[in-house]
Amino acid sequence: MKLVCIGSGNVATHLSLAFKAMGADILQVWSRDVKRAGILAALTGSRATSNWSEIDRNADCYLIAVKDDAIASVAAELKEVRGIVIHTSGTTPLSILQGSGSGCGVLYPLQTFSASKAVEITKVPFCVEANSPHNLELVTALASLISPNVYPVDSAQRKILHLSAVFACNFTNHLYAIGQQLLEANGLNFDMLRPLIQETALKVQSSKPSEVQTGPAVRHDEQTLKAHKQLLEGSAEWSQIYEILSNSIKKAHP
Amino acid sequence: MKLVCIGSGNVATHLSLAFKAMGADILQVWSRDVKRAGILAALTGSRATSNWSEIDRNADCYLIAVKDDAIASVAAELKEVRGIVIHTSGTTPLSILQGSGSGCGVLYPLQTFSASKAVEITKVPFCVEANSPHNLELVTALASLISPNVYPVDSAQRKILHLSAVFACNFTNHLYAIGQQLLEANGLNFDMLRPLIQETALKVQSSKPSEVQTGPAVRHDEQTLKAHKQLLEGSAEWSQIYEILSNSIKKAHP
Repeated sequence: MKLVCIGSGNVATHLSLAFKAMGADILQVWSRDVKRAGILAALTGSRATSNWSEIDRNADCYLIAVKDDAIASVAAELKEVRGIVIHTSGTTPLSILQGSGSGCGVLYPLQTFSASKAVEITKVPFCVEANSPHNLELVTALASLISPNVYPVDSAQRKILHLSAVFACNFTNHLYAIGQQLLEANGLNFDMLRPLIQETALKVQSSKPSEVQTGPAVRHDEQTLKAHKQLLEGSAEWSQIYEILSNSIKKAHP
Repeated sequence: MKLVCIGSGNVATHLSLAFKAMGADILQVWSRDVKRAGILAALTGSRATSNWSEIDRNADCYLIAVKDDAIASVAAELKEVRGIVIHTSGTTPLSILQGSGSGCGVLYPLQTFSASKAVEITKVPFCVEANSPHNLELVTALASLISPNVYPVDSAQRKILHLSAVFACNFTNHLYAIGQQLLEANGLNFDMLRPLIQETALKVQSSKPSEVQTGPAVRHDEQTLKAHKQLLEGSAEWSQIYEILSNSIKKAHP
């Protein structure tokens, strides 16, 4: 499998290293920033470029891992290639790739990638989609190289997955950050909260979150809810978040 | 160490089993519900009672693990005992125990306990407080029996800890539940979201949450934020949660 990687960020890096480790041949890394392309090219034993005219036209797959709003312009540069053009975005429809390459597909990893932290790629669910059954087989085979968890998901479902991931990952991380700030403002160490955060996430690995809800809101413990609102009087923003989420929990658990 | 356990719920069960395992002598379990007291008494090799007149007055510690609003009435029944009376609540001040036993303290485990899931008790942070340095030593020694993570925390700080735990645990679990419902309503399996949830919690074990925030809001990706709001048009509640948390993330990462 010959791959060209378009992009040099966290997703491009994690995916191309995983493909490389499974024996794929990374031909090139393209990035607007040729220095960053150079770093990933060195890591994957490939060539770096920021010049579209230098793109190898004979790869099997062109993996686009750039910001969502750059996908259309990148795809437009890949009209003439022989392989299949694949993006990795949660929200972007497959149709944005129409007319590029010999076909198009999506390979969306439902995971959060950081520069500093290794991810166990075999545990990552990959959502795949393509413009034909044959190309879906190809994208599925590509994803299966690095993870056993490959799911065919259409563009509409993928948007829902991305949205649910925002709730379960981006918003939860922000709530961790609010916890961190509450502690630090009161001379307490965020270390104290870390085991609780981990246990909360581990608990829903074998249970449904709606069935293991704890806290004052699910108990309709108005006295504690009131005391917490008083502690938050200094921040209209956090107070509002507290109220809305508590009311939503109470509504879900009447 | 001779203990009497007041309560028979999740916290009472996890703590008394941990103390028993570390060699403490559980004399009695008191519960309003004598059947539940009987189950925990059988597990800890102790006697069950729902009758205050039968309480052993010569234990070293009386550990209260009942609902917050029942602590005062329970403490009133423990005026005449010889040992120290300790509650395990995050929000209740130490002062509610004044006049009970030969002294009073708090031993608050900063963790979420479920009936169905074992907790690695040695990883749980215990917040301790007492009415005198001598009693603080005693409560610290008691907590240290089962966990190396024991922190002296006063009543005001403990309230903040409990509040931050609501944000980082109860609210995040509710956001998991919203993700679960979004998926299920669209024919998708919650399994797909589980690895992301775990990774999000694991990431902040070594990083500060504010430093590893991801998602459309932190990138100020207005196009995706707008698309997500459209997907949520059917639910005023989730739409409001999405907007408030996204705005809070944008404000924290300008």
